[in-house]
Amino acid sequence: MEIKEVFKKEKELIKKEIEVKGWIRKHRKQKEISFIDLSDGTTIKQLQVIYDKNLKDFDSIQKIHFGSSIKVKGVLKKGRDTIELQAKEIILIGDCSEEYPIQPKKHSREFLREQAYLRPRTTLFQAVFRVRSIASMAIHEYFQKEGYVYLHAPLFTSSDCEGAGEMFRVTTLDIEKISKTGYIDYEDEFFGKKVGLSVSSQFEGETFAQAFSKVYTFGPSFRADKSHTPYHVAEFWHVEPEVAFCDLEGIMDIGEDVLKYVIKYVLKHAKVEMKFLDEKVEKGLIKKLKKVLKEPFKRVTYKECIDILKQSKIDFEFTPKYGEDISKEHERYLTEYFGCPTI
Amino acid sequence: MEIKEVFKKEKELIKKEIEVKGWIRKHRKQKEISFIDLSDGTTIKQLQVIYDKNLKDFDSIQKIHFGSSIKVKGVLKKGRDTIELQAKEIILIGDCSEEYPIQPKKHSREFLREQAYLRPRTTLFQAVFRVRSIASMAIHEYFQKEGYVYLHAPLFTSSDCEGAGEMFRVTTLDIEKISKTGYIDYEDEFFGKKVGLSVSSQFEGETFAQAFSKVYTFGPSFRADKSHTPYHVAEFWHVEPEVAFCDLEGIMDIGEDVLKYVIKYVLKHAKVEMKFLDEKVEKGLIKKLKKVLKEPFKRVTYKECIDILKQSKIDFEFTPKYGEDISKEHERYLTEYFGCPTI
Repeated sequence: MEIKEVFKKEKELIKKEIEVKGWIRKHRKQKEISFIDLSDGTTIKQLQVIYDKNLKDFDSIQKIHFGSSIKVKGVLKKGRDTIELQAKEIILIGDCSEEYPIQPKKHSREFLREQAYLRPRTTLFQAVFRVRSIASMAIHEYFQKEGYVYLHAPLFTSSDCEGAGEMFRVTTLDIEKISKTGYIDYEDEFFGKKVGLSVSSQFEGETFAQAFSKVYTFGPSFRADKSHTPYHVAEFWHVEPEVAFCDLEGIMDIGEDVLKYVIKYVLKHAKVEMKFLDEKVEKGLIKKLKKVLKEPFKRVTYKECIDILKQSKIDFEFTPKYGEDISKEHERYLTEYFGCPTI
Repeated sequence: MEIKEVFKKEKELIKKEIEVKGWIRKHRKQKEISFIDLSDGTTIKQLQVIYDKNLKDFDSIQKIHFGSSIKVKGVLKKGRDTIELQAKEIILIGDCSEEYPIQPKKHSREFLREQAYLRPRTTLFQAVFRVRSIASMAIHEYFQKEGYVYLHAPLFTSSDCEGAGEMFRVTTLDIEKISKTGYIDYEDEFFGKKVGLSVSSQFEGETFAQAFSKVYTFGPSFRADKSHTPYHVAEFWHVEPEVAFCDLEGIMDIGEDVLKYVIKYVLKHAKVEMKFLDEKVEKGLIKKLKKVLKEPFKRVTYKECIDILKQSKIDFEFTPKYGEDISKEHERYLTEYFGCPTI
């Protein structure tokens, strides 16, 4: 049984025998009795397993290292704050080494970045990746219910999409060999010509919108810009809707609509995870999101933006000026000025 | 109003004035009266627009080339076989050149392949791409309702996933320059080392399954094998579920379950498109799919397969032999032998 199900049906399961499988997050050992926090990743909640001296193999079970996977049969009980599983049988499925780097304590994100294959086992990343998954589903649900056709645009391309970014080149040439021989045999090049990775599926979306009226892509794009800011990544997934017979007002309606739909969907389907993120990562997160849902987004012209920025008397890094781009710092100021998402 | 909606609500819309936008698929001109087949891609069905001499600008509207986009205001009428829109106003939105290559006739798929940006405007590709979109949604719905976490695995990688295929190299090096100078400056290489495009997200899926119990990826993979068969493509999208605490029997259950779910979903949500494909592309398609839904898949051991293949007395290209792979021709024979999907 999944641990999510155990919590969901806890009332009817009390005093019943159940079986769960998962990974040990914490293992507190006492002489007569011991406690295991068990996670199977179906929820960020952990199930407390209790076992005592009467359990078969008590001594060897006490030696099981956290991080190991186990199977537990037992009877569900009402504990002080939450439910507990009184174990009747504990079986080791997969052992975990003493050198296991994820300790039952708070790790820095920098440390976890180096343990990329293990960090999904922490509560933080359990929450983040489940929210990402649920938000992705919300995006698909929104566009499908609105009748859009979902496209998988080709990622190998020789178009650079109006210079949206620097392109990575894709090749089957042996570059090291070329440096030695000085000779490029284009017969060795898979497509027989220079090909790169798509920086955007916009062009493909546009040609399909001219056939289906409403289409969207939701896939990866790649940009080789050597810019080490938090706003740039070499590969990322994004959503690109393209709509025929639509005007700017209509596009803004869609943008606002899809964002609100995703927020509503995530708040509904990732309740536990959002509560965790609200408490541990960004206080007030849920309140902020609910505020976004309540009000219409502010829609403002470019000219009005520049006027507001000029009147702000703030010493921006980039001085606001008619004809120039609106920079990140300007966007931030404007959003705070209006107190809501601003288009 | 979308043309899909017009057909859906045709009973309540008869004698009402409506406005539609779309592309002209066919334009038949007579002296007193003319007919336009209008498509907006929200359904593969086309709406017949009728206009006569009394319409303002009758002569110039008759000159509008098929492929053009127009806006039509008119009154919906019951025609002989289907509904018709009696135009009160027709406005040209986007003109289409006389050289437009998609004629109102059947084109070969080879020809359409060369017109990749226009082929979504044909009924065949309207059906194919909508079915693909709906099938993709079915896949997401299945795994999400079963509690799987959807992952976007990194596509840049230095692992080759157990040699699942040849890798494309991704580079920011200037290969042409290297051939001249004979010198590779790895400072110019984006990641500072040799990086390729993922051939499978299996490894990432496995690490996440060890945290969430059930995960899936649905994204692109890339293979540089120089194999020109219908079974090989350089880039493709696939679904890779990874499940912890599961055995072979359980994995087969999931495989069977997801396939049946997708078929059921497509038959329900792409009715018109599937009917078209059944009539025009593969007779008996719907019947075949419904048969797949009805019966359990055949599950058979490797040994049993080889025995059946040996007893078939068929002169296979690859002689079936214990210890050897089961080839495509063998798979085809076995599936026909059992008369159903075979695992």
